Amino acid sequence: MPLLTRIRGPRDLDRLSLEELDQLAQEIRTFLVDAVAKTGGHLGPNLGVVELTIALHRVFESPKDKVLWDTGHQSYVHKLLTGRQDFSRLKMKGGLSGYPAQAESEHDVIENSHASTVLGWADGIAKANQLLRRDSHVAAVIGDGALTGGMAWEALNNIADAKDRPLVIVVNDNERSYAPTIGGVSNHLATLRTTDGYERFLARTKDLLGRTPVVGKPLYDTLHGAKKGLKDFIAPQGLFEDLGLKYVGPIDGHDIEALESALSRAKRFGGPVIVHCLTEKGRGYQPALQDEADRFHAVGKIHPDTGLPIASSGADWTSVFGDEMVELGREREDVVAITAAMLQPVGLEKFAKAFPDRVYDVGIAEQHGAVSAAGLAHAGVHPVFAVYATFLNRAFDQVLMDVALHKCGVTFVLDRAGVTGSDGASHNGMWDMSILQVVPGLRLAAPRDADQVRAQLREAVAVEDAPTVVRFSKGAVGPAVPAVGRVGGMDVLREPGTDTPDVLLVSVGALAPMCLEIAGLLDKQGISTTVVDPRWVKPVDEAMAPLAERHRVVVTVEDNSRVGGVGSAVAQALRDAGVDMPLRDFGIPPRFLDHASRAEVLAEIGLTAPDIARQVTGLVARLGGRFESPTAEVDPVEPARD
Amino acid sequence: MPLLTRIRGPRDLDRLSLEELDQLAQEIRTFLVDAVAKTGGHLGPNLGVVELTIALHRVFESPKDKVLWDTGHQSYVHKLLTGRQDFSRLKMKGGLSGYPAQAESEHDVIENSHASTVLGWADGIAKANQLLRRDSHVAAVIGDGALTGGMAWEALNNIADAKDRPLVIVVNDNERSYAPTIGGVSNHLATLRTTDGYERFLARTKDLLGRTPVVGKPLYDTLHGAKKGLKDFIAPQGLFEDLGLKYVGPIDGHDIEALESALSRAKRFGGPVIVHCLTEKGRGYQPALQDEADRFHAVGKIHPDTGLPIASSGADWTSVFGDEMVELGREREDVVAITAAMLQPVGLEKFAKAFPDRVYDVGIAEQHGAVSAAGLAHAGVHPVFAVYATFLNRAFDQVLMDVALHKCGVTFVLDRAGVTGSDGASHNGMWDMSILQVVPGLRLAAPRDADQVRAQLREAVAVEDAPTVVRFSKGAVGPAVPAVGRVGGMDVLREPGTDTPDVLLVSVGALAPMCLEIAGLLDKQGISTTVVDPRWVKPVDEAMAPLAERHRVVVTVEDNSRVGGVGSAVAQALRDAGVDMPLRDFGIPPRFLDHASRAEVLAEIGLTAPDIARQVTGLVARLGGRFESPTAEVDPVEPARD
Repeated sequence: MPLLTRIRGPRDLDRLSLEELDQLAQEIRTFLVDAVAKTGGHLGPNLGVVELTIALHRVFESPKDKVLWDTGHQSYVHKLLTGRQDFSRLKMKGGLSGYPAQAESEHDVIENSHASTVLGWADGIAKANQLLRRDSHVAAVIGDGALTGGMAWEALNNIADAKDRPLVIVVNDNERSYAPTIGGVSNHLATLRTTDGYERFLARTKDLLGRTPVVGKPLYDTLHGAKKGLKDFIAPQGLFEDLGLKYVGPIDGHDIEALESALSRAKRFGGPVIVHCLTEKGRGYQPALQDEADRFHAVGKIHPDTGLPIASSGADWTSVFGDEMVELGREREDVVAITAAMLQPVGLEKFAKAFPDRVYDVGIAEQHGAVSAAGLAHAGVHPVFAVYATFLNRAFDQVLMDVALHKCGVTFVLDRAGVTGSDGASHNGMWDMSILQVVPGLRLAAPRDADQVRAQLREAVAVEDAPTVVRFSKGAVGPAVPAVGRVGGMDVLREPGTDTPDVLLVSVGALAPMCLEIAGLLDKQGISTTVVDPRWVKPVDEAMAPLAERHRVVVTVEDNSRVGGVGSAVAQALRDAGVDMPLRDFGIPPRFLDHASRAEVLAEIGLTAPDIARQVTGLVARLGGRFESPTAEVDPVEPARD
Repeated sequence: MPLLTRIRGPRDLDRLSLEELDQLAQEIRTFLVDAVAKTGGHLGPNLGVVELTIALHRVFESPKDKVLWDTGHQSYVHKLLTGRQDFSRLKMKGGLSGYPAQAESEHDVIENSHASTVLGWADGIAKANQLLRRDSHVAAVIGDGALTGGMAWEALNNIADAKDRPLVIVVNDNERSYAPTIGGVSNHLATLRTTDGYERFLARTKDLLGRTPVVGKPLYDTLHGAKKGLKDFIAPQGLFEDLGLKYVGPIDGHDIEALESALSRAKRFGGPVIVHCLTEKGRGYQPALQDEADRFHAVGKIHPDTGLPIASSGADWTSVFGDEMVELGREREDVVAITAAMLQPVGLEKFAKAFPDRVYDVGIAEQHGAVSAAGLAHAGVHPVFAVYATFLNRAFDQVLMDVALHKCGVTFVLDRAGVTGSDGASHNGMWDMSILQVVPGLRLAAPRDADQVRAQLREAVAVEDAPTVVRFSKGAVGPAVPAVGRVGGMDVLREPGTDTPDVLLVSVGALAPMCLEIAGLLDKQGISTTVVDPRWVKPVDEAMAPLAERHRVVVTVEDNSRVGGVGSAVAQALRDAGVDMPLRDFGIPPRFLDHASRAEVLAEIGLTAPDIARQVTGLVARLGGRFESPTAEVDPVEPARD
């Protein structure tokens, strides 16, 4: 990598010739395939933006100018060009984040992996630049998929309103987000792409004009004016121009010279401009190009030559759900599926193949997923909206005001709930069991194993007058955890073996094995423990308070923020029943979690069997015999860090 | 009202001649002005849609067909035409809702007053109709203002994707939402409106063709084809057509014949169609037309002739905030204001006049309000985003993932927090203090009086590395409630008058006077009570647990969902400190609240001084002397109804 290793920062690009830049692009592709093959990561998206990233850093002077990335997983090339070339621990504890990270570099801004935010950030920064009369440019890179998100529209509408506020919007158009992009906007972009021949014609004109000495701005304007006049006959790029946004494109996103030319013109323009770049996801890597499903959007460890995965994965939560959906679809014609541009990642591929007319991909548009589900349910079908837990936050208002208020039977299946680990703060699904607690009538299930996923999904879709939620973890599903008894609607996973048990341990979802381990550890200390899985954690089962009363202490363990989660709900249910007894709630502390493996994160936050057993042992010991006084000196648990 | 009183349902419209329909429209306007003058309500929007509503119900056969209203406050005419003409208790307990309500009529669907949802609902219902092969049409009415919301874009993008799924979108374009609409989409609509003359020309052609016998669909297609061909030269309606949506318009929204003709064509078309109607907000009522600010969007009781308010209102929370913002703006050049299309209702008019370059109206786009605020803060200014508490739900993900994760100093001012009453379920701001609890680093203030609004706003904008929230009630602000002491950062509002006090009463925000009243009632029962106002309810003050320990019982009172709210946060803080003592949390039960006055709602849910005092008295009595046992038989509080 003779060229890449010499790049310490973006300004090192200035000295390179066009030929060297092309060579650099090849070196970067080789680097990416080798590096990501070893660690896993987002391969396809980064292979697609090599030239675009080089051109952006040639034209814009980061960090004085801001180069902003939507969704952030396509920032690997940006990292390579801004002094970060050690990818050996990508997405691992202590290694590089898989997304931009302000702690890593002054060249990074948006850390959040939720899509469609970049135009809003760019609008805010551009407003501040204008207000503070700061000499700084903003370039925002957004994929065509992310344009389907409502936030992008809200931002475009605002950006277009200020003709004198410079802002360069780069549409990275690869005709797909995770999978091929859907909807009206993608059809529109497709029309624009057909003007290729016309672009080449214009490019020749531009070259000609480019050799003429330029005096001020008129040249661009003349060119642009002519182009618009002509183009109205050829391509309806009106969508952007009708909003009042200048449009440049489409540009070959792998032609560094063309990119630089377009970006330079856009930078000079003095107002909001859209630069429409056509890129190829997975560019230059055959295994990716041959993968029509998602072009190696995100991969685990792979053989770099073949692209085949190294580790074979066992059954995971997602596929258990996906298989059961097909069964359900066969039995009930009124069951339909919704996905927000993630058909395959949420396990709906088989359902889509079996029932192509009964699956709706709404784009990266969780709000629309939820509100259209309300409409579907109102009109007599039962939608199952499968979505990553963290992305449901986008649709909180719609779950509350459209689905719940209108008593619609909609099932939300939350994949990747709890600590997901390596994708960092914004991918952890640690909010749902807290914010959904306030939604009247909503019922929430946290299945503990594959059998429970199947059973609770069926119980969920049987509810026709309220939203239901089924949430499960990322990755491999563990072995079955059998119930040894039932109290109310709750499964008893372990009996205490005494009539005067000490601890009622409330286990939530996939943490059942950990809770049984805690009970075993407590047993060794002579502390008798009942382990109960409520199955449905909202509403709290009416049998909870009477069961709790038979114990000395209640302990809840959940893979969710401990603020306002299941522990808080159980505590409130006990208070409401007049059962005043010590309770300790274990969960994720109220802070953002750095990227690391799930096990490392759980260890760091003390969500492990030994940690919890130790704290419960201390508490029980200090309570002495039967609980005597509310002010007994008990050991505080680790306080909420806020 | 000879005609109006004869209309029992939409089909009664079928028999009327065009002249009679015009007369009916006049009767309806007279009715609306008289009725709303007596009760208050949304006047301007309804005066604008009289003819449109008549035409919709002539063309579509509700309830077989679905006529859907966005935001819902313009459904008064719809109510009049669907058998609901007793407006004497509009928005009052037991009277008509100010929004559609399924419990009122089979003609109503969307009850939710949050904007921009109707296209999503319509998409869902249309999908179900297609799937179930149901012979039913869907017409969705959306204002030009609501088109600025991201949900509308997400829905348009989906609707455009299904060319064979009938759906009629009626754009009710009055050039304003609450106030004049902003942004690129409104500029685009403005361009469309200028094609009036061209429309008239086309109308003549249409009339001609209308007299020709129609055979199947070709006539419409021919006409439409010709129109598009011509129109490309005249008006760039491309924005919608580029998305793949047929466009009809603009239509004079007060010409019933023209409306019926356009809606009939659209209904017959067999795919998604946009019908663009130009209406005049406040039509036919001089006082409204002369009010440039918001055309009598929503009024209290008024004199019908003059439009002048009957009751003069005293100082309210909103204006206290608005005045202090002007002061702050003078002192700090880096403070800017953001509103989501509600400059006047949230009290930012004076700030906008004083600092026109430092206020941003983002449209009905709370997501963009929050994310652009993150960008502004990142780039060095301090945004204050003033928004109704209930509407912040739309931006939950952005508060969490853009503002909090990136440690941006953004202040959210939540107006109309708590029970607002007469606007029904979706206007109550009863969610914020629950869902915001999970946001790491966020600080939340609930000022109890005008002085505290001013003080806490200043404390909030002084925080530069985290989101801050200041939330207050709707309406008149009460007299000052002085502090008699301070514990940690908390104000003591009442000392217990003994060294062994019984109850620590935690008062949140505007409920301080009620809490002092509760303490007085308890005093009469011999129960000594400390009243403390935490001021900042998140994070829980470190002095809370030590203070609580000096009492026998903790009671929290908040104007927010009792699920996951301040009570839950205090309870968790006590647990974390190892302070296990009885706590009772009073707040809004977890259900949607019907419309009624604020006082009526509070009485109904038991959030009154006598109710709470009675329950606390019962609890303390049953605890006997010092609290002895966790299983002491205490009276359960009203359980959470879910």
